[in-house]
Amino acid sequence: MTKEAVQGATEEEQQAQSKKALKKQQKEAEKAAKKAEKQAKLDFAKDRYGVSAMVQSQQKLDRELVRVQDLTPEKADQLIWLRARVHTSRAKGKQCFLVLRQQQFNVQALVAVGDRASKQMVKFAANITKESIIDVEASVRKVEQKIESCSQQDVELHVERIFVISQAEPRLPLQLEDAVRPDGEGEEEGRATVNQDTKLDNRVIDLRTTTSQAIFRLQSGVCQLFRDTLTQKGFVEIQTPKIISAASEGGANVFTVSYFKTSAYLAQSPQLYKQMCICADFDKVFCVGPVFRAEDSNTHRHLTEFVGLDIEMAFNYHYHEVIDSITDTMVQIFKGLRDNFQTEIQTVNKQFPSEPFKFLEPTLRLEYTEGVAMLREAGVEMGDEDDLSTPNEKLLGRLVKEKYDTDFYVLDKYPLAVRPFYTMPDPNNAKYSNSYDMFMRGEEILSGAQRIHDAQLLTERATHHQIDLEKIKSYIDSFRFGAPPHGGGGIGLERVCMLYLGLHNVRQTSMFPRDPKRLTP
Amino acid sequence: MTKEAVQGATEEEQQAQSKKALKKQQKEAEKAAKKAEKQAKLDFAKDRYGVSAMVQSQQKLDRELVRVQDLTPEKADQLIWLRARVHTSRAKGKQCFLVLRQQQFNVQALVAVGDRASKQMVKFAANITKESIIDVEASVRKVEQKIESCSQQDVELHVERIFVISQAEPRLPLQLEDAVRPDGEGEEEGRATVNQDTKLDNRVIDLRTTTSQAIFRLQSGVCQLFRDTLTQKGFVEIQTPKIISAASEGGANVFTVSYFKTSAYLAQSPQLYKQMCICADFDKVFCVGPVFRAEDSNTHRHLTEFVGLDIEMAFNYHYHEVIDSITDTMVQIFKGLRDNFQTEIQTVNKQFPSEPFKFLEPTLRLEYTEGVAMLREAGVEMGDEDDLSTPNEKLLGRLVKEKYDTDFYVLDKYPLAVRPFYTMPDPNNAKYSNSYDMFMRGEEILSGAQRIHDAQLLTERATHHQIDLEKIKSYIDSFRFGAPPHGGGGIGLERVCMLYLGLHNVRQTSMFPRDPKRLTP
Repeated sequence: MTKEAVQGATEEEQQAQSKKALKKQQKEAEKAAKKAEKQAKLDFAKDRYGVSAMVQSQQKLDRELVRVQDLTPEKADQLIWLRARVHTSRAKGKQCFLVLRQQQFNVQALVAVGDRASKQMVKFAANITKESIIDVEASVRKVEQKIESCSQQDVELHVERIFVISQAEPRLPLQLEDAVRPDGEGEEEGRATVNQDTKLDNRVIDLRTTTSQAIFRLQSGVCQLFRDTLTQKGFVEIQTPKIISAASEGGANVFTVSYFKTSAYLAQSPQLYKQMCICADFDKVFCVGPVFRAEDSNTHRHLTEFVGLDIEMAFNYHYHEVIDSITDTMVQIFKGLRDNFQTEIQTVNKQFPSEPFKFLEPTLRLEYTEGVAMLREAGVEMGDEDDLSTPNEKLLGRLVKEKYDTDFYVLDKYPLAVRPFYTMPDPNNAKYSNSYDMFMRGEEILSGAQRIHDAQLLTERATHHQIDLEKIKSYIDSFRFGAPPHGGGGIGLERVCMLYLGLHNVRQTSMFPRDPKRLTP
Repeated sequence: MTKEAVQGATEEEQQAQSKKALKKQQKEAEKAAKKAEKQAKLDFAKDRYGVSAMVQSQQKLDRELVRVQDLTPEKADQLIWLRARVHTSRAKGKQCFLVLRQQQFNVQALVAVGDRASKQMVKFAANITKESIIDVEASVRKVEQKIESCSQQDVELHVERIFVISQAEPRLPLQLEDAVRPDGEGEEEGRATVNQDTKLDNRVIDLRTTTSQAIFRLQSGVCQLFRDTLTQKGFVEIQTPKIISAASEGGANVFTVSYFKTSAYLAQSPQLYKQMCICADFDKVFCVGPVFRAEDSNTHRHLTEFVGLDIEMAFNYHYHEVIDSITDTMVQIFKGLRDNFQTEIQTVNKQFPSEPFKFLEPTLRLEYTEGVAMLREAGVEMGDEDDLSTPNEKLLGRLVKEKYDTDFYVLDKYPLAVRPFYTMPDPNNAKYSNSYDMFMRGEEILSGAQRIHDAQLLTERATHHQIDLEKIKSYIDSFRFGAPPHGGGGIGLERVCMLYLGLHNVRQTSMFPRDPKRLTP
């Protein structure tokens, strides 16, 4: 009865109608209860499936959940419990085939009408939305023919109980199988691929794909290899502040923060702090942390926030001691990835094919003048002291690959004019400097140098670069009380991952990328 | 001749005077040269000392530099090169005693007039300013009586060559021996201690003290133990963005960043991103990174930027699975520090005495109501649903220590009203929640909870907390496509180090602390 109908009737009429409605409702309820009772009697499996109450830590269940990757023929004929996502489901007569997924692993499961499953239970299973999380109790069965479409090819699960733990909404913003499809594949059948913005807008789902799982497990590996190698070399991990009082590196491309009643900036690199640690006797330091660049660049390799892997160390007599430490660290990372992350590399390669990453031992080191000569020979016109443009960097990378068969090399002794004020000039040629970049597949991944450790020379160079000395006073003062010669460099984590895997956009190797146009999710 | 004198004379006079002056200058130069020659002849050791040219990587010297810590009796009678700081120097007749320092290690060195050193060389050595960095060639000699004041007690160095690599300015802003003096010690002799602001203003020098070196080497150890333990448990390291589009946790205490033509915020915790990773099937994740709080608190334990050690994990049936993982990780950290960082702990204890840190296995877990009961028994008046004040936290810590003899415990099941909107309510009592804090020496180091993984309940709770749903849309949407039950927590690195070592100010365990009044260095 609608509100409007009630308003149009007398009170008595209303009461009569209410009574009538109540009776009707009661009758209907009784009818429904009877029907349910009848159905329940018919459904012998009614306690074997359903939607569970939200897990709110109501109880401590003494139930072991098996991992999908552990479902091997050794477990045959065991009755196990498993929690996984419904990757796909397909009903077929009295059966429902499910593929159950846990990260990069998946297994086939079958719910079939029989002793343990009713028709209603199969129907229930068939209606579970993709990406829902379920608990199943199932018997593990060996299969005669390998299941090519699953990671667990030798067994399948015969489901005896099935409960939904968390229900996915029926309409997914993107399909996982579309998100991992190689560019161009399946176009003839009209199959979709997913563009990058849709992926990033729905990152929580996109990160579930085998490709994303592999990329970010490998990235986690890069960080670990970086730290383990340096720790073994006697480096100490430091934590440097990200909120700083002055835009130390010239003032361009820096984000401003409101800081109580004043303003502050976000650190464009931890470099000044790493150097202070060297002046404070930590000898060799590294840090892993966010780096911020307010650069309005919308390219495949620029982010406004990325993860810096930073190194700084005192050396004895020559900054090539620093280059050797860094290149050896990179080589240890490349070896570790090659030896321990083959599955991840191959998974990514399925969607994004690329040549295996090549490197030499010891690492190839070319001087800037040699690089310029190679470029000129290839027809590029450039001055001795010109910086390398991005296309020229890439071209040089190709030339180096052709000549030396390596995807990793160091370009040493950059022109002084194109480097920051704190770069140590070359002692033999005032046009050049003790600085270097490192490249992977022709793209820069590290920039570094011997730093000026003498307060007087540093003051001169800062003045030459028209930097406000008052703003970098505490930095320059760090060198007044005895400072060892030192050098270092900063590596971009996302670039290393992108280039090692032969990917083409740094947003693929940043979990939640930030660029001038993207701040979410 | 001054400029003024020149201006007062005729041109001829000027020329005559100039000639005269020139002659005089020439004569003086000749005289000085002769004197120098004579002195050089007299000083047979003139090539054995001096101020080196700035190390600019002029040459690759094939010279091994020995570490101070490796100067043991096994090296007796060897001639070695060493680079170190001048810690102290004391001239005494024809001898100069130096203490040479490398981080926490030091050794005595002697420059004495004799075969290898001239009177002038001893004088030169005696005049080297403290904290300068020098290279010495020296013969290692066993000593009959242990040198109690040095870390290398069994040998001293007989210096044969000495060169200054980097000269410290003569007036140090603070003396290292003052900076490590325990409070109150040496007061009678009028010896200074250094107050905290002076230390922090001159952090590069303060960090050279044995106490600072020990604190930050231990801190590096905490990070490593945290990561290694979690990696072994199958956790994946993630990198979460620090620049975010919305102040997700209610909007208070958040720093604003200018972001091109719009505004953004600094993340107050990586929590929402950790949770998205759980929804994206990473299962168990951790991250180590900066956390920003725009809180105008000038206390011993608040920083505006600190390092968060964050954990998040899916669990099966009960959030105590999460508590167990976290407490086990903490116990592994405590054990690792106890077993591998005794030297550092004892070094810090010399300046800041404290009781050894005690913990139980398994970790003590008390319910909030039990904690409140203990406090009431001790005379505290508080309501069931009141939050713990800082003094009450400390008092409860003391009561727990008395009763259970542990410096580490978990307080479980906080009142729902005092926790953030995303906290899972207790299934049995609507007043409480599935949340917990962890304490070291009576101070909170971790806050955590089971999170709500159901979009509908999350929406209800956010609405109840009057949070703008539009601003947390992408967060809530993360739970719409299947989300496992999960929980986690965030640990403050600086607090863990401070409390483990029994220190009393979090600025002691932050290399470059940030608070409402401090943004430098």
